[in-house]
This record gives sequence, structure tokens and C-alpha cells, in this order.
Amino acid sequence: MNAETWLHTDQHGFIGLAGPLHGLAEALDRAFLDLALSFGAESQEFGPLLAVRDLRKIDYFSAFPHLVMFPTSVQNDSEALREFAGTNGAQADGGLHLNRLGPVSHVLAPAACYAVYIAMEGASLDVPRRITVKGTCFRSETSFAPLVRQPCFRMREIVHLGSQHTVESFLAEARDRVLHLAAEWDVKCSIDAATDPFFDPARSPKYLHARLFPSKHELTAGDVAIASFNNHRNFFGEAFHISTQGAAIHTACVAFGIERWVNAILRTHGTDPVNWPLS
Amino acid sequence: MNAETWLHTDQHGFIGLAGPLHGLAEALDRAFLDLALSFGAESQEFGPLLAVRDLRKIDYFSAFPHLVMFPTSVQNDSEALREFAGTNGAQADGGLHLNRLGPVSHVLAPAACYAVYIAMEGASLDVPRRITVKGTCFRSETSFAPLVRQPCFRMREIVHLGSQHTVESFLAEARDRVLHLAAEWDVKCSIDAATDPFFDPARSPKYLHARLFPSKHELTAGDVAIASFNNHRNFFGEAFHISTQGAAIHTACVAFGIERWVNAILRTHGTDPVNWPLS
Repeated sequence: MNAETWLHTDQHGFIGLAGPLHGLAEALDRAFLDLALSFGAESQEFGPLLAVRDLRKIDYFSAFPHLVMFPTSVQNDSEALREFAGTNGAQADGGLHLNRLGPVSHVLAPAACYAVYIAMEGASLDVPRRITVKGTCFRSETSFAPLVRQPCFRMREIVHLGSQHTVESFLAEARDRVLHLAAEWDVKCSIDAATDPFFDPARSPKYLHARLFPSKHELTAGDVAIASFNNHRNFFGEAFHISTQGAAIHTACVAFGIERWVNAILRTHGTDPVNWPLS
Repeated sequence: MNAETWLHTDQHGFIGLAGPLHGLAEALDRAFLDLALSFGAESQEFGPLLAVRDLRKIDYFSAFPHLVMFPTSVQNDSEALREFAGTNGAQADGGLHLNRLGPVSHVLAPAACYAVYIAMEGASLDVPRRITVKGTCFRSETSFAPLVRQPCFRMREIVHLGSQHTVESFLAEARDRVLHLAAEWDVKCSIDAATDPFFDPARSPKYLHARLFPSKHELTAGDVAIASFNNHRNFFGEAFHISTQGAAIHTACVAFGIERWVNAILRTHGTDPVNWPLS
């Protein structure tokens, strides 16, 4: 048997996992969920639509215009719909022929944790809180490599909200625990400092870099980032008015790219499931 | 405690479930997955991007131009990106201000089962096969009612591929088993014949209606469809060249709207989790 028959893709964005490969993705996420629960995180779930007005609060569109994907549809009047139907029938060629589009009030979530801060807008917390979410994420990419670089992928995150001190100890402990998991599965990797792929960094105000993700480390395996550790300081706390002890709360997140971990297991252990350390 | 605090929404498309409500959604899907496995279905998973050229094979854009949602992004050149960033900064108002968009090669899946037929294109099956998938689905809607009518929602499906005879017995057994599940949870409902919401039905060729979904029944609870039973005859078999015994295969699917079942449980049993029949 060959892992190729368990991976469905059209080389442009369609992705499907079947058989043991689907089982591996589920087992990996279960391990990350177990890790999150052992950290005392509550499990929550969010759909992938985030309001434009919420992402404006973190000036997302200035920083990442090249990554953002947004859902559109045909303007809701019968003339526009008939024209769209007429130019996109079974005989049409190429991509969708667009005509009048409806307004775009939401974008497709580029990361799983944003929804958590949005949902907690205005909250005041007495004690630190941890939340875990698994989200479908979307990012516009110039190339497609199944399991490695996909316009649509799954991300499991563990979010910590608290003081600067609790954020730092959470991240330190999480780094140790994730390195331990990777070692248990024989995945060779290292943790390095990283920066988010800002648009046009030469023109971006420096303070934006510093404020958005002042501290980001990535766990890389074979030159591919499979997890990241992010200290946002009080950036999301300020943007969404989430506070603790009368001040904007500090936040951190640990993110796992599910498909990339599947890829790391395949690269390390080959395509025969009997050799996989988990399934 | 109140279910309101476990439901996060912005009344326009953002949706999140926390606490016992998240647990209820998970428990419902687990029950549907268990049902699927008891039917001998294999579990698979697909991302929500479907190629435009694949949906053209079933003439989807002629039949449902009003429902289809597609992901777009800004055209990948620095001038277009700078303009987009400039008009959508933190000070901007309203929906996204669009300028030049990149090509649209994929749409956001309107149903979970399409990916199954796309992934099996060209296959020849000796025996019937059953597959279960849980997908994030997108449909353009003119109104938003959390848990009832959402632009983005989750759908669990059980797909059967085989002969006309095995399709019919699968659907008959599935109807019985789903009615039994609903009765077990005290959800009052009925099964009625239904039609898909075709665009402009007066102008649509009759054969299209007949061919696309010749037989659709819905399980409705409080006027809301919470499951559907669809006999596609050989429509997908022909479109994607999936065959059995030398002829286009027949297919059927049973679909569960996860959020709508959450809503049905809340309507039936109230918002206190101690009264829920599953969690």
C-alpha cells in the first residue's frame, strides 16, 4: 500500500486524507488536544468567518494584505445571478468569471486564535485562562505543496491569557512539552526565532512589527515550521479590551499545523503505517 | 448558567461554541460518526476548497449561482496590495474595499459529499462502498440566524456508492436509524419530500431538476431541516466517471447539519445541560 492513495489533491488547493493518513491526522490532533487539556485549557470551536471590522482592530489588512482571503458571492439580484450562471455553465473554461459581487463583511480566518480574542472582547479576567481551538485557516499563497503549503489548512492552538509573567512561564513550559512530544515521535526539529511574513516590511512602520508579534519562535522540521510559539504581549488585550487587574491582558499562543505534522511523520517514518509512532 | 454565554456570534456570520454547547456539538457528531461506522462507512476528511472545473462537471453554477461562495484574494502585485492595504487600514469603515482580485480557481464547498465524488473520479468499484466525512460548508444566505441559518456551518455526511438497489436499501435503513436516534433524544420531527433551492426554477431546464437531485427527503424539527436523505441516482457517477459493473455508479447521501441539531436539542430540552440527553 502507498500513502499516495490516501492523499487526494488537485495540486491547486483541494486536499483530502483517507485511510491511515486520515487516522494519523486525527491522532496528531488528539495528542495536541491532550497536551492542551493537560495545560488546563478549555476546548472551544469557531467557524472560519471573522468580521472585517474585528480584524481592522489589529490593523490586519495593513500588515498582511497579501495573505488575507475573503469569501465573496454574486450580488443578490436576479440580473447579476443570471449573468453569472450564464457565463459559468458546464461549457465555460478556466476560473470563475466574476461579475457584480456582494459586499465583503467577513474574511476567512488566517489563524485559529483570533476568534478567541474576538469572542472575549470586553472581558475582565481575575485569573489566567487557557483555551484550545482547532480551526480551518486560509492564507493566499503563491504556490501549493500538499501537506506543506496549502491555501487552506488546519491549525490547533493553545491560547494563554494572563500576566506577562504567566505568559512567559506558559511559553517556556509549552516549548519543553512540544519538544518532548516531537522527540517521542523521533521528529528531528529545532526551535528558532522567527518573524511573521509582513507585507512590504521596508515600508511598514517599525512599531507595527514590534507590536504585532514581538516574540515568535518556530519549531522547524526539515525547513518547514510545524509549530510556533508566540508572545503577543498586550497587543490583543489592548485591541479587544480584554483586561486583568485593571490593565490590558497579555496573551500567548502555541500553534500546530496539523498537515505539516502529518508530513513530518511521513518524512521521518515513511509511508507504511506500521512504522508510524502514532495512528 | 445560560447557554448564551456559550454561544459567540456577531449576528453576521461569526459563530463560536464554548463550554457545554461545544461539548454537545461534539457529542452529536460522535453519534452521527458512530452511526456511519455501524453502516460500515470509512472515515475521510477534505478541506473546503473545491475546484471550479470540478463543480462545472455537475453544472453547479447554473443551478445554484445564488448559493455559491468563493474565496478571493488581492491580485499578487505590489501596487494592488499597497492600494488594498491603504484603503483597508484600521481607520477604514464598512466592508472590505476591493480592488484588483486574483483569479478564482476554487469555491468554498457548499456540501461535504462533493469532495468524495471528486476524489473518486475515474474509479471502478466491484462492491458498494460507504464513506463518512465531516465538512465545513459555505452558502451565501440573505439572513443569519445562529445555529439555524449560517453562511458557514458543519455538515456530517454518510455517502453510499453502489447499485440502484443498494442505494435504496441504504436510504431506507438510514431513515429508520436516524428517526430512532431523534426519538431517543426526544426530538420531535418528521420526514418530508423536499427540493433543493434551485435558482430561477421557472427558467431552469426541467431535466436539470430531475437529474440533480431526483429524490430528496428532509428530516425537519420545528420547521428547520436537520438532516436530509438524497438519492442522486447515477448523476455523480456519470459526472465523475465512477462506475460499477461497467455502468455509472448510483449514489446516495445522508447529511446532518451539526449546528441545527444543537439547536433542536436546545429547543427540546432547554439550555441547562443537565437536561440534555447527550453531552
